[in-house]
Amino acid sequence: MANKIGSISHRSQQFKDIYAHAEKGLRQLLQLPDNFEILFLSSANEIWERAIQNTVEQESFHLVNGSFSKRFYEIARELGCRAEKHEVSFGQGFDIDNLEVPGSAELVAVVQNETSSGAATPITEINKIRDKSNPEALVFVDAVSSMPHPAFDYNQLDAVYFSVQKCFGLPAGLGVWILNNRCIAKAEAMQAKGISVGSYHSIPALLSKAKAYQNPETPNVLNIFLLGQVVAEMNKKGIDIIRQETEIKAQLIYDYLATSQNFEIFVQDPAHRSATTIVANTKVSSAEVIKKLAPFDMVVGSGYGNYKEAQIRIANFPTHSTSQMQALVYKLQEIFG
Amino acid sequence: MANKIGSISHRSQQFKDIYAHAEKGLRQLLQLPDNFEILFLSSANEIWERAIQNTVEQESFHLVNGSFSKRFYEIARELGCRAEKHEVSFGQGFDIDNLEVPGSAELVAVVQNETSSGAATPITEINKIRDKSNPEALVFVDAVSSMPHPAFDYNQLDAVYFSVQKCFGLPAGLGVWILNNRCIAKAEAMQAKGISVGSYHSIPALLSKAKAYQNPETPNVLNIFLLGQVVAEMNKKGIDIIRQETEIKAQLIYDYLATSQNFEIFVQDPAHRSATTIVANTKVSSAEVIKKLAPFDMVVGSGYGNYKEAQIRIANFPTHSTSQMQALVYKLQEIFG
Repeated sequence: MANKIGSISHRSQQFKDIYAHAEKGLRQLLQLPDNFEILFLSSANEIWERAIQNTVEQESFHLVNGSFSKRFYEIARELGCRAEKHEVSFGQGFDIDNLEVPGSAELVAVVQNETSSGAATPITEINKIRDKSNPEALVFVDAVSSMPHPAFDYNQLDAVYFSVQKCFGLPAGLGVWILNNRCIAKAEAMQAKGISVGSYHSIPALLSKAKAYQNPETPNVLNIFLLGQVVAEMNKKGIDIIRQETEIKAQLIYDYLATSQNFEIFVQDPAHRSATTIVANTKVSSAEVIKKLAPFDMVVGSGYGNYKEAQIRIANFPTHSTSQMQALVYKLQEIFG
Repeated sequence: MANKIGSISHRSQQFKDIYAHAEKGLRQLLQLPDNFEILFLSSANEIWERAIQNTVEQESFHLVNGSFSKRFYEIARELGCRAEKHEVSFGQGFDIDNLEVPGSAELVAVVQNETSSGAATPITEINKIRDKSNPEALVFVDAVSSMPHPAFDYNQLDAVYFSVQKCFGLPAGLGVWILNNRCIAKAEAMQAKGISVGSYHSIPALLSKAKAYQNPETPNVLNIFLLGQVVAEMNKKGIDIIRQETEIKAQLIYDYLATSQNFEIFVQDPAHRSATTIVANTKVSSAEVIKKLAPFDMVVGSGYGNYKEAQIRIANFPTHSTSQMQALVYKLQEIFG
């Protein structure tokens, strides 16, 4: 607040420095190749819309296994796109070996971590999608609630996006879109054909300002500043340690859930269990679980949608320390067995 | 921060209460009629885009007298709209009596307060636009940097919008769109015809969530909370006093500028001078003015675009007290004469 972050001009040098700090920090943290750019938008919802507007002329293809992957599919259709989907049950992962991707799909969307169900797609499976698709198709990966945990192979995807209110522990209101030269070329080619790719937040418009460390509109300056600070802290710790800790903490939780009298791991296939959003069926209602944890300043989420009462969701983000997660496990065990 | 505003769920009752508090406070402050709704978006840029997508099938008409009114016109064209404009010089207002609005225009855009030049359109002039237009046309008013000062006649307009980083003194990242049943009906009629009006941020999508005090996406929760707090403070003071104070402070500044050796009021016609963003030509460079005020913790802005060095812009927002503005005048007088 002392630096007046809340009121500086988004055209000032001070803002450009803030933007560059966040951008360069993320680039280091995620070990991004040079052919990838980082764009700041308002939400993952907005990124879904901009992705369709900017990279799909006719048809997209969506791997759906929960509420968020389904929403991307629906948004594509609302925008007039001929979207197709391959849907599996809530809580299941995908069998990419036996998947058929339509050759006409220009964008193939896969969710690495489905926040609603706690099902994750292993990186090894994501890496098979490109070969299953038309060579021109763009592979879009949703890592809204898992980034920076997944160690992506950036040769096997064209875009990945996340929201800062999940693993980065920040107030909501900023979506980060990481995309490569192939996405940019597609947007430019569509624009050259006279197709509208939007206005102030088209890929070309965002990119032309991003090169000067700015946004077209007055952006969420405070959140870009805070993201830079959090990412700098993460870089001090190092991405390898963050990933290792995330996995150790996830193991703690899953080990407890597997032996609990009250809880049951929801995602059946161990290879498809999320490390960052852990979902369990619960015999007592989620409301009861939340209420009983409250006096200890511990928070778990209720289930998503229809599973609101019958499931809990445990966030395992870098901001949660190993001892906090261990304390949560002890407390759950003590209260619910 | 004690209430964990940064991390609450945007589907929780706590968030709905925050949203309702901001919404009801604004409704009271602006004395909105019941046929107007309030929607929360990311920026005024976004509101421009959503306005075109949701309420214009073919043609919009834009009164242009500066960078922001021109940008709305450009965005309409980028979205494939047949946009027309009536343009006057930078720093001038509009002569509505002699204006011809094309009968085919579905949306007529006027900027009440052009942030780039400090030219304002008097309410009495805005009130003439409806009669000049096709009865079906929607009148869209930009009050980004003046709301809540203008005492609009809501019978004479269909939508008005503003950004919270101006008169509400908040961090950037929230645009507020106030629109009536005519705008909603137009969006619904377009949707019924099979025209895409966008996805998660179409008027119908925003509205269906707004009715339950929520947003379709995870919004900028912190800013909606802060807006509610600032608006509650403003309501305690009362809109009449805020408007009166704004005018007194503006008079202080304009009176000084009129007699200064170094500065000169930029907007010629007194009736067209903004009360909230006051622009002056300066003999010494704006950079020099800014530098000489810095030790006294006083801030003015440089001119916009090509006028960066040759003009200064003085913000006169409700957050600036009369004594602060008087102190600024004394200091400018002391340093620059």
